[in-house]
Amino acid sequence: MVVTGSELVRGERTDLNGPFLARSLLALGLEPARIEIVGDDPAELEAAVRDAIAGAELVAISGGLGPTHDDRTVEVVARVAGLELELRPELEAEIETVSRRVAERMRRDYTDFAGGVRKQATVPAGALSLGLAGTAPGLVIGVGGTPVVVLPGPPPELQRLWPNALATPLVRHVLDGGRPPLRRTLRLFGAGESMVAQAFAQAGGDGDGVETTICARDFEVVVEVLSEPDAEKRAEELTAALGSRLERFLYSDDGRTVEQVVLDLCREQDLTLGTAESCTGGLIVARLTAVPGFSETTLGGIVAYSNELKERELGVPAALIAEHGAVSAEVAEAMARGARARLGVDVAVAVTGVAGPGGGTEEKPVGLVYFHAVTPGGEKGSSLSFPGDRDSIRRRSVVAALHLVRRVLTQSRDKAAWLGG
Amino acid sequence: MVVTGSELVRGERTDLNGPFLARSLLALGLEPARIEIVGDDPAELEAAVRDAIAGAELVAISGGLGPTHDDRTVEVVARVAGLELELRPELEAEIETVSRRVAERMRRDYTDFAGGVRKQATVPAGALSLGLAGTAPGLVIGVGGTPVVVLPGPPPELQRLWPNALATPLVRHVLDGGRPPLRRTLRLFGAGESMVAQAFAQAGGDGDGVETTICARDFEVVVEVLSEPDAEKRAEELTAALGSRLERFLYSDDGRTVEQVVLDLCREQDLTLGTAESCTGGLIVARLTAVPGFSETTLGGIVAYSNELKERELGVPAALIAEHGAVSAEVAEAMARGARARLGVDVAVAVTGVAGPGGGTEEKPVGLVYFHAVTPGGEKGSSLSFPGDRDSIRRRSVVAALHLVRRVLTQSRDKAAWLGG
Repeated sequence: MVVTGSELVRGERTDLNGPFLARSLLALGLEPARIEIVGDDPAELEAAVRDAIAGAELVAISGGLGPTHDDRTVEVVARVAGLELELRPELEAEIETVSRRVAERMRRDYTDFAGGVRKQATVPAGALSLGLAGTAPGLVIGVGGTPVVVLPGPPPELQRLWPNALATPLVRHVLDGGRPPLRRTLRLFGAGESMVAQAFAQAGGDGDGVETTICARDFEVVVEVLSEPDAEKRAEELTAALGSRLERFLYSDDGRTVEQVVLDLCREQDLTLGTAESCTGGLIVARLTAVPGFSETTLGGIVAYSNELKERELGVPAALIAEHGAVSAEVAEAMARGARARLGVDVAVAVTGVAGPGGGTEEKPVGLVYFHAVTPGGEKGSSLSFPGDRDSIRRRSVVAALHLVRRVLTQSRDKAAWLGG
Repeated sequence: MVVTGSELVRGERTDLNGPFLARSLLALGLEPARIEIVGDDPAELEAAVRDAIAGAELVAISGGLGPTHDDRTVEVVARVAGLELELRPELEAEIETVSRRVAERMRRDYTDFAGGVRKQATVPAGALSLGLAGTAPGLVIGVGGTPVVVLPGPPPELQRLWPNALATPLVRHVLDGGRPPLRRTLRLFGAGESMVAQAFAQAGGDGDGVETTICARDFEVVVEVLSEPDAEKRAEELTAALGSRLERFLYSDDGRTVEQVVLDLCREQDLTLGTAESCTGGLIVARLTAVPGFSETTLGGIVAYSNELKERELGVPAALIAEHGAVSAEVAEAMARGARARLGVDVAVAVTGVAGPGGGTEEKPVGLVYFHAVTPGGEKGSSLSFPGDRDSIRRRSVVAALHLVRRVLTQSRDKAAWLGG
């Protein structure tokens, strides 16, 4: 995958297209080899396209199809493929129709658009058009037997045209050779990466046709076991051995993330869920509401960034804040109770901490965060001290809060089952 | 920049290191040429490292330094550089100290860690250690005159060791040749990319030593004018010409994002700010609270995902929801008023919409979102219909909501100024 855009290679924006294409191809049985992000410089772009074509059975390029001067993908691909550029009148007419509508909506003259339309309708000879998304046509071009798919940069447009690319004979031919790998995912919380490596070695390692990756992030370790169809048995043994060795830490073996596990636990137990957030500022509830289909489970959340709101919206006593500080176990607990009462939910999780960069003291340094989770069956508080910057403190706090509520919910479920409830 | 990790090349996780390194190098006067993301496969990794060294004055590699079997960066770099691997006893002792502490905290035997420690203390002969972050040492290795910086994958660890890399003589030598570019950024809202391209062409285009990129996302267009120090004048003329041609759409010419502009407008006018969110589920308040230093301005927000909470927490009349539906201009307006009253804030912005994938009807399809902003000086509602998936509908709704509140705040400020207030 080659992704072009100066703002991407300069790190000013995060690329979404490489990961989207990679996930799609992996699911179809192709192993993603490389995502190359380059700027608008034609020489760099050309080198990246040449490297990609040299090393892969299929190349997808995103970006650089727009009407502006710095959109150079089509001319570069034509040069690499040794093809002439040609203006396609029928494509020009198609793009003109779209552009006239845009011009009308913006109350601008169409003449402002005509140059861009001509540029976007000029494509390498022999290229197959995938249709328009916006005003940019997607293209498939065979370069020495390798299909090169050229797609517009805006992710929704790329995602709309991608199925058309997959349906072309050139791309289908490559996909027919792919065998979708079988995948098993173990998600662990609280285990160190070294410990997982040790368990992996003790379980006998990969073996033929199995490829395991172990990856740590924000207290979680994700183990992915990918296997070819005829290595199924080994993969299953390995996964089972890892699962039993790391049982204490294992919270998901079916691909579900911690927010999905929390939401499913709530649904199973017929509980509603809400949040009370200070330093995480809405990130916990945003992550819970990113999972579709849980509007009956997640009722909502209160972001009480100021002490005033902690008192008024969450009913935290002013005296408690005065005595212990807004960043304290006592206030986290009061916030969770307050959210439960005010939001009328069964389960609430609260977070208050110092995300920095300012606001730290010797006693309460930047990175200190308090958590509290309350459910009908039990409750639990904790505190953690995170290194890193504001973003990473906030991100890790979200993960820790979700795991805290998961633990309390799991215990209350287990207790209920034990009691026959 | 070479970033390694199977979960990254497979699109299961977003790379943060390439963008971080790119931004840092750009600020130091080096133009980032390419970010290559590869998996754990040693052949792919080796090809990527070779391509990078062939084409660049400085190479930074992240990831693959851990204790697990799939961490292969050090052996690959040694092979590319033609260097032997050596176990460094002093490094082993350093890593052992850290690992013993970890083992103790996890209540595990140190023997579980010893193999990983030896692996992480084995480095190419002649490599310069940058010290530890976690248990992985960062390294700088000269490969045929090109400094290759090897850093651990976890972003906080990479970010901690990166300054050490910048301070090494090998890297300093490259940086001394760099001339930090001057950068001007125009941020536009509501202008099409074609229109900006046209304005750019009419303003005479780049000229020598100036490089402009035009980039559209979620209704915003960002124009970056980078110039070499001796092309200052042309860059200034171009920026001024673009700014005046696109004045109607320009909302920031100093690098500030829309959330920063909104927060500054509130602070200027001594106003407090809160949110009432349904389909965006906390993303607006999360974005506002990501900007540090505004705890006095942003008091908080209410995420009322359910109708019940819209009624109870935001005071939206049940009859209004029954009559118009939860996704309606009337409910958005009532949510904004409710947030203002309940949160006790001066300015409130509310969003309610259908983010999908389910929940759409013929009358209220997926993607339809209503907005309302209230300030002491005025108010405004709007509705938009977004294409795309749940994530992109939510993301675009956040941008649209922030711009709506910006507009209302700008008008009220202008009115106040005009009245001498």
